[in-house]
Amino acid sequence: MIGGGPGSFIGAVHRMAASIDGEAELVCGAFSSDEEKSKQTGAQLNLPPQRVYGSYKEMIRVESTLPPDVRMDFVSIVTPNHQHAEPAILALESGFPVVLDKPLAFDLAEARRIQAAVNKSGLLFCLTHTYTGYPMVKEARQQIISGRLGDIRKIYVDYPQGWLSTFLEGADNKQAAWRTDPSKSGIAGAMGDIGTHAFNLAEYVTGLQVTQVCADIHTVVDGRRLDDDGAVLLRFGNGASGVLIATQVAAGEENNIKIRVYGEKGGIEWQQDQANTLLVKWPDRPTEIWRAGASYVGSYAAHNTRLPAGHPEGYLEAFANLYRNFALCLKARLSGTEAAPEWLDFPGVEEGVRGMLFVEKVIESGGSEKKWITL
Amino acid sequence: MIGGGPGSFIGAVHRMAASIDGEAELVCGAFSSDEEKSKQTGAQLNLPPQRVYGSYKEMIRVESTLPPDVRMDFVSIVTPNHQHAEPAILALESGFPVVLDKPLAFDLAEARRIQAAVNKSGLLFCLTHTYTGYPMVKEARQQIISGRLGDIRKIYVDYPQGWLSTFLEGADNKQAAWRTDPSKSGIAGAMGDIGTHAFNLAEYVTGLQVTQVCADIHTVVDGRRLDDDGAVLLRFGNGASGVLIATQVAAGEENNIKIRVYGEKGGIEWQQDQANTLLVKWPDRPTEIWRAGASYVGSYAAHNTRLPAGHPEGYLEAFANLYRNFALCLKARLSGTEAAPEWLDFPGVEEGVRGMLFVEKVIESGGSEKKWITL
Amino acid sequence: MIGGGPGSFIGAVHRMAASIDGEAELVCGAFSSDEEKSKQTGAQLNLPPQRVYGSYKEMIRVESTLPPDVRMDFVSIVTPNHQHAEPAILALESGFPVVLDKPLAFDLAEARRIQAAVNKSGLLFCLTHTYTGYPMVKEARQQIISGRLGDIRKIYVDYPQGWLSTFLEGADNKQAAWRTDPSKSGIAGAMGDIGTHAFNLAEYVTGLQVTQVCADIHTVVDGRRLDDDGAVLLRFGNGASGVLIATQVAAGEENNIKIRVYGEKGGIEWQQDQANTLLVKWPDRPTEIWRAGASYVGSYAAHNTRLPAGHPEGYLEAFANLYRNFALCLKARLSGTEAAPEWLDFPGVEEGVRGMLFVEKVIESGGSEKKWITL
Amino acid sequence: MIGGGPGSFIGAVHRMAASIDGEAELVCGAFSSDEEKSKQTGAQLNLPPQRVYGSYKEMIRVESTLPPDVRMDFVSIVTPNHQHAEPAILALESGFPVVLDKPLAFDLAEARRIQAAVNKSGLLFCLTHTYTGYPMVKEARQQIISGRLGDIRKIYVDYPQGWLSTFLEGADNKQAAWRTDPSKSGIAGAMGDIGTHAFNLAEYVTGLQVTQVCADIHTVVDGRRLDDDGAVLLRFGNGASGVLIATQVAAGEENNIKIRVYGEKGGIEWQQDQANTLLVKWPDRPTEIWRAGASYVGSYAAHNTRLPAGHPEGYLEAFANLYRNFALCLKARLSGTEAAPEWLDFPGVEEGVRGMLFVEKVIESGGSEKKWITL
Repeated sequence: MIGGGPGSFIGAVHRMAASIDGEAELVCGAFSSDEEKSKQTGAQLNLPPQRVYGSYKEMIRVESTLPPDVRMDFVSIVTPNHQHAEPAILALESGFPVVLDKPLAFDLAEARRIQAAVNKSGLLFCLTHTYTGYPMVKEARQQIISGRLGDIRKIYVDYPQGWLSTFLEGADNKQAAWRTDPSKSGIAGAMGDIGTHAFNLAEYVTGLQVTQVCADIHTVVDGRRLDDDGAVLLRFGNGASGVLIATQVAAGEENNIKIRVYGEKGGIEWQQDQANTLLVKWPDRPTEIWRAGASYVGSYAAHNTRLPAGHPEGYLEAFANLYRNFALCLKARLSGTEAAPEWLDFPGVEEGVRGMLFVEKVIESGGSEKKWITL
Repeated sequence: MIGGGPGSFIGAVHRMAASIDGEAELVCGAFSSDEEKSKQTGAQLNLPPQRVYGSYKEMIRVESTLPPDVRMDFVSIVTPNHQHAEPAILALESGFPVVLDKPLAFDLAEARRIQAAVNKSGLLFCLTHTYTGYPMVKEARQQIISGRLGDIRKIYVDYPQGWLSTFLEGADNKQAAWRTDPSKSGIAGAMGDIGTHAFNLAEYVTGLQVTQVCADIHTVVDGRRLDDDGAVLLRFGNGASGVLIATQVAAGEENNIKIRVYGEKGGIEWQQDQANTLLVKWPDRPTEIWRAGASYVGSYAAHNTRLPAGHPEGYLEAFANLYRNFALCLKARLSGTEAAPEWLDFPGVEEGVRGMLFVEKVIESGGSEKKWITL
Repeated sequence: MIGGGPGSFIGAVHRMAASIDGEAELVCGAFSSDEEKSKQTGAQLNLPPQRVYGSYKEMIRVESTLPPDVRMDFVSIVTPNHQHAEPAILALESGFPVVLDKPLAFDLAEARRIQAAVNKSGLLFCLTHTYTGYPMVKEARQQIISGRLGDIRKIYVDYPQGWLSTFLEGADNKQAAWRTDPSKSGIAGAMGDIGTHAFNLAEYVTGLQVTQVCADIHTVVDGRRLDDDGAVLLRFGNGASGVLIATQVAAGEENNIKIRVYGEKGGIEWQQDQANTLLVKWPDRPTEIWRAGASYVGSYAAHNTRLPAGHPEGYLEAFANLYRNFALCLKARLSGTEAAPEWLDFPGVEEGVRGMLFVEKVIESGGSEKKWITL
Repeated sequence: MIGGGPGSFIGAVHRMAASIDGEAELVCGAFSSDEEKSKQTGAQLNLPPQRVYGSYKEMIRVESTLPPDVRMDFVSIVTPNHQHAEPAILALESGFPVVLDKPLAFDLAEARRIQAAVNKSGLLFCLTHTYTGYPMVKEARQQIISGRLGDIRKIYVDYPQGWLSTFLEGADNKQAAWRTDPSKSGIAGAMGDIGTHAFNLAEYVTGLQVTQVCADIHTVVDGRRLDDDGAVLLRFGNGASGVLIATQVAAGEENNIKIRVYGEKGGIEWQQDQANTLLVKWPDRPTEIWRAGASYVGSYAAHNTRLPAGHPEGYLEAFANLYRNFALCLKARLSGTEAAPEWLDFPGVEEGVRGMLFVEKVIESGGSEKKWITL
């Protein structure tokens, strides 16, 4: 693991997610660019001292020299955005598959460099768009791409947060600090942090691509240096249209990312607050409540569920599904067997480049008097 | 009553709403421009035949000649949009207060003519934006304008319907037929029919005015002559921004109009499907579930509720609140007493003109490459 | 109307419910046993003074002498329980059909006298068990008696209130006072007031009859003279079993009466807080959300709904359905035509006698060491 | 680990729960009484072959001989009920702390033997009543025992399942087979399997003890050998009363265990389907929605939450909280430091004995004509 030292939120999430299914085990880490802090975290995690490194470069270099059955099988990178590209590319060039926290990179140029490195290496690569790991999100996608709703007409995706309603970066909050710092986050704040999740969810669930955006982007809180709020009109390749909302100043909101998709025949609705439920709506018959863990769900949802219906699985299990599928594919590749389609269903570098393209265009649109910007 | 004959939906709604509280009684009507149909409806409603008229002109003329204690006290107009202005203006000029179904008129020019007639007559005028009659919508407004949420930053309003997902006007559906007919509805379909409700709700609840719009307007269903779908980015006078969604092609949706407003300190959420509930959200303490009929609600909500908490009141009671408050104000005026502020809280002609302005600008924006259109 | 004077809650409810559909009009009343108060209420309701009476006896006597097209068509009785039997029986003996508020009577003996009077007179009789007027309760019943769920095994019915959590009858609260007064309510408090509603709902929805009860009855609040809380194990004629909960000391609860029924094949769930929704659950396919006003509901639900799906109808509309169906049957009888089965579906005197039998047995069980008491 | 071989459901749950927080690692196992199956499971779990045993006796014996830093620190026992007592007692006598799946034992006598062994050994013991691991269940308990609701009056606890609505044990279902087999489950089916969860939840959340029960117990499905359904009237030591429902034949239900508690001043409601939410209800002010992960929750809820509010945690995290707190206490004991009160808050052997007492009395009551049976 690269990153995830003291004060990190997402590092601990990656570690918990990776451990649930017993498919991955933390064996080494460069948890901080401060060697002392890296050692400290390594000790807390009960790692042997010799596998705790003072820098990612050292880690990749040393691990490369270890025997195959000892050295790490892949790298998880959980650093802030500006520290994604270099370690990811070095890892790939050194032969290590990569799990990378979203968004893919600091900017689109870096994103394309990572993409090139992935393609050149031929190695597995996973970008942790957590929400696509939820079984009922997968069920939604399968029903939609199977044509159950008919041609898709409308897509609404909504990620309201309230935690940045005040100038939290002025208090001593590490999460707020780097996420609102252009030198670490890139050109976007909310749009990069959660807008990319919403964008990815919309494209994943529908199997469609956004072709044009018209964005209203705001920095609501005084003194903030990046956007903390935005709304985007969307147009999709098949003629469908939609709206994406991502805000961090909806005071009182938590993390209830939500998507609604309507086709000619019916609609679906999913939200994180009822993560194990998928509503499927029809004009002429009762709305259906599809439930994770139920006997009747499709193979993608079933593969990504551990418990009987009614025993809720949550965010960590959704995250764990990314790791589990990545690990299953890795093992298949190592053993020369074929990966099941359900295993291959995790976000990769293409999704990451799409996300960075979205960020770039949406920020451009926010500052433009031109109505529609083409992706 | 003018309009509300065979095949009318909203005519029956007006009659039920007016009768619940015993403040108004139907005494006469010109229910159809077809005299036979008017008579037929009048008979069904047990009206004396001499009070059932073949045209609104006849009704207004004859009723004007009846003794004050016999003639109608006010007129309800429930015709399609293109038949709003003439009867409304004639009624006002003849001294009859008016209750008029929304939207105010066929176009903005007509709307302003009605406005002039209201102002000139000095008579009471009510436009039936039903949703503002709900007690918890009133509670939301009162909490917001009292400053409980701090300065308002974000407004999201959403009116998803699915009933026009197919070419229903091609089947023999009177409701679909006139609402999608430019000669009856005006320049807008969904935006006039339900977009104006959403727009009115946003301005009513926040006490703010929309100053700019950026709209993406669609006619999704083949063959349809007016818009059936739209999304609008909103900017408000105080610097707040928001999104308005109104669609009639969200297959499987009913009428769950919903509003969320966020201020510096907290947010509110109300939706018709849980009409007796208002959620008030805070970053640092539990969300509050405010309930209609509860002891702790404010005077506006209390005045507009009939039953103890937990005995749900619905759409007809919200509609009845418009009639009841209109009637209470009318009685106060007739008796020379002062109307309570709670009674005066019903939508009038200014709200109607705002709605028509919205329709005009939003349709203009939908067809424009310019990003922002000023209202 | 008999009763419903100053301080009455249910009188106003009856009047609103009766007026919504325009099928019934209030023409006379004896609103209080205090002639002055009766006159005062009559004046408020705009009744002609000569139709406002000082006693129900006077009303029935005088109205009987009026010409058929003038005199009242039926009587609504909305007095406390101890004043049900005498006016109801006199009305029936005088040839007036009766709408009577629940529970049927002060005790089982009185209930049977009313039943005898109904049977002897051959007149229509309606007992206002409001909850059976909800369209989705009717839908539940139709699905169950059609066998859709298979043989019924379990019935849970729950009526939690909190309004009597304190000694409210010690404050000047008229509703609390008579409902906790054995000389007015009879032997039961909560069990008579809301337990009978729950009992009626269970028997109505399932079409089954309770055969045995085992009750735990409490008077929780110090100083109270009747039960304010109880739970009852139920056994039904077909071998099904269940639980009935009725309490008035569940502090913070409103009126969320709820029923769940499970058969061999599936289950249903309905609650007043989501009155327009019926959940139908299956082991092997998604739960269905049936909605009032939707195109696909059965004829009973459709007949008892006024609005398109998503425009909520509530308690008053459910109550109005009782009046409307009663009035439709009355008109059919007067006109010699046949009443539709949907019209006949309102609670009558048999349901009332069942309710009083339940009250008697459940109070007996509450005081007994014997486990099961047979109804 | 003892048990958890092929076909086991709860074994995998224990393993996932133990691994989430990195506080415990699986080091050895006797997964089946069939040595071959045990080896097979051990191999799947990547255990070294020498730490996979053919019997629990062998495991305890051999592990006892390993050096302290190698041998297992505690034992998890996840076998069917009839195989709880012997391995638990042997483990305790051999100096190993125990985590044991509920219910505690095959019968009350065995339960008391385990209790004696725990007390004699002085070792830590955890019984996995999962639902008490949910943060908002802990919040409920803390609010109640702090007196926030006043004296407790009513407790309703409800565990509806539907999975045994058919004769599943006749199909080749290992879970159904042992749970309905008196030689493996003991005298109770549903009452032991889920009734004990509901009972434990009621006593845990309120801090009260049940003193008397009156039960209606059924075997609904033909051919079944143990109860699959029951309802129990409860009386508590402080004078409160309540109802417990546990059924496995509520066709269409999943695992929505739910508790409602009412005191003099207010009430709480929690259910697994909305596990991260606790409703706190008041007669005279808005209901509060308390949320896991929010800043304002108490120390017990906070300690048992990993993620920010709105990122749902579920059943596995609740289960993991038991393991985590057990492990924290174990480490504290090993390091001679004091365990925090939040760590000590996991179910132990006393709760297990209470559960077996409940099972014995509730089955006795089900077969008795006597109304109340004293615990």
